[in-house]
Amino acid sequence: MIRTLLAALALTLSAASVSAQDTAAEAQTPASIIAAAAPAEWVAIDAADLLVMELAPGASGEERRVVIQLVPPPFSEGWVENIRRLARAHWWDGTSVYRVVDNWVAQWGDADETKPLPDGLRDVPESAYVTPVERDPAGVRDFVMTPERAEIVVSRFIDSYAITAFVAGWPIALDDEGGSTAWPVHCYGHVGVARNLSPDTGSGSELYAVIGHAPRQLDRNMAVVGRVIEGIEHLSTLPRGKGEAGAYDGPALRVPIVSVRLGDELPDAERPRFEYLATDSESFAKYLWLRANRNDPFYRVPAAGVDLCNVQVPVRRAGG
Amino acid sequence: MIRTLLAALALTLSAASVSAQDTAAEAQTPASIIAAAAPAEWVAIDAADLLVMELAPGASGEERRVVIQLVPPPFSEGWVENIRRLARAHWWDGTSVYRVVDNWVAQWGDADETKPLPDGLRDVPESAYVTPVERDPAGVRDFVMTPERAEIVVSRFIDSYAITAFVAGWPIALDDEGGSTAWPVHCYGHVGVARNLSPDTGSGSELYAVIGHAPRQLDRNMAVVGRVIEGIEHLSTLPRGKGEAGAYDGPALRVPIVSVRLGDELPDAERPRFEYLATDSESFAKYLWLRANRNDPFYRVPAAGVDLCNVQVPVRRAGG
Repeated sequence: MIRTLLAALALTLSAASVSAQDTAAEAQTPASIIAAAAPAEWVAIDAADLLVMELAPGASGEERRVVIQLVPPPFSEGWVENIRRLARAHWWDGTSVYRVVDNWVAQWGDADETKPLPDGLRDVPESAYVTPVERDPAGVRDFVMTPERAEIVVSRFIDSYAITAFVAGWPIALDDEGGSTAWPVHCYGHVGVARNLSPDTGSGSELYAVIGHAPRQLDRNMAVVGRVIEGIEHLSTLPRGKGEAGAYDGPALRVPIVSVRLGDELPDAERPRFEYLATDSESFAKYLWLRANRNDPFYRVPAAGVDLCNVQVPVRRAGG
Repeated sequence: MIRTLLAALALTLSAASVSAQDTAAEAQTPASIIAAAAPAEWVAIDAADLLVMELAPGASGEERRVVIQLVPPPFSEGWVENIRRLARAHWWDGTSVYRVVDNWVAQWGDADETKPLPDGLRDVPESAYVTPVERDPAGVRDFVMTPERAEIVVSRFIDSYAITAFVAGWPIALDDEGGSTAWPVHCYGHVGVARNLSPDTGSGSELYAVIGHAPRQLDRNMAVVGRVIEGIEHLSTLPRGKGEAGAYDGPALRVPIVSVRLGDELPDAERPRFEYLATDSESFAKYLWLRANRNDPFYRVPAAGVDLCNVQVPVRRAGG
């Protein structure tokens, strides 16, 4: 898989040139680029890589379904393996969302931490927060986003935290001192593993989704295991907790989780079918460029820059 | 006021040294720095600079009050003047929050845009999105946040969008090419003026608050006029709209605004009293450094960096 990772980076480099003139002339927008992307640029997400979480119906009886895509190997593999085991054991059924903090996270699992965990969960070491990668020095080029440059190579760019890149549909950060590790990051909607004090890394039974500005200080300090690709509003609109550390002040306020299933365990008719825009595609390169350089009539001044978490990888229902 | 702005920058530079050794030895956190800040480091916010918005009570009858601090001069002055006039005319009473988009904004005002505006509102030109500043080249120093440096000068740092700084309690961006303008930015909870296509800049009657990851591409393209300092959850937890552009699909779903008042118009007992941690104080410098370099026992690896919107300026009820 490490080889695949490097291949993805190299492909990004060669496929991702985009002309500033093109984009300015047609007043394209990120949305128009997504709409015009070729079918072949979309990558199907395996149902086995999706978690479907059904919360108890809302106040008006509305369905509340949250779909989470698990991060692909080689990232956070031990925790993702635990999470698959927990889901196949239907362990989350009957647990709850028990902590919601504004501009921070919504967290779920067993609020009382008394429910026995299934056999076979691994203790994952802190070293697994990052993944060793071989760097190809020839493949590293700064990503400078200015409208004046006729040819933009979308490969890696530096934000306030790290060298960043897109790999296999995911925003990724890289070590900026010698460059030997990579890690998935905390963006809006991303899902991580709650834990106690270091060196505890969490089993994967207690999870959280980011519902505010990207808390990138958590990168490399907690395991990022997925991202919400549909239904984040069922978490982000929940009442904020008023108890300790934003927990709900009493069991009655918790939001019951009816079930959590891996997508491939659902009957065919209910199986989630999603796809993402390949991050090594030409359309993604244009999309990324426009995220940094809005030049449609609504905008007066392009930002000429963008941070990693402000470039959400397009994900849609398959055939959308 | 421009002189005051420059003075604030210079003061930041001289007062804001902090030793890495200090902070590591005591395992301080951003929260502990705020708690230990001296009373003299807190700056009272004038009630006349606050907007108090009362939404109709929630489903369980709970009060929903949102307190907004207006951005100080010289930023966005024309719009802030309009907003004061609209508030004094009680213009927002009976209007609504009519548009809520996940990871984007909650927007309020007159959904139907038929309510007559009060006399005396100014047309503000696009040029007012930014404010001319004199730059003091001697005052510009890069803000490099690494734990290895014994002495850190907190003055300005570059994030993915611009040179950034804190001025009079506000995160501010600066032109990075020759440096002659500054502008307030779009962070979580910040409030801006909705508008139609450029060159329209909006009167200030239709406002939005950011309820997701900072949409910094809007900087210099829309007027930032304030920030929510209490009650953001009453906006961020609202149901997301399913109509056009995230508007609520029908008037019945809109959230009624009972009243919007400038703080100094409220009776003394209800008058909001808030204060912010001076951004030219020693405690703010330490807080900022720790936002970039968490070294308490929960953290394993400090980020050694931070983006402007991930450094929320501490604001609390006065005497807190």
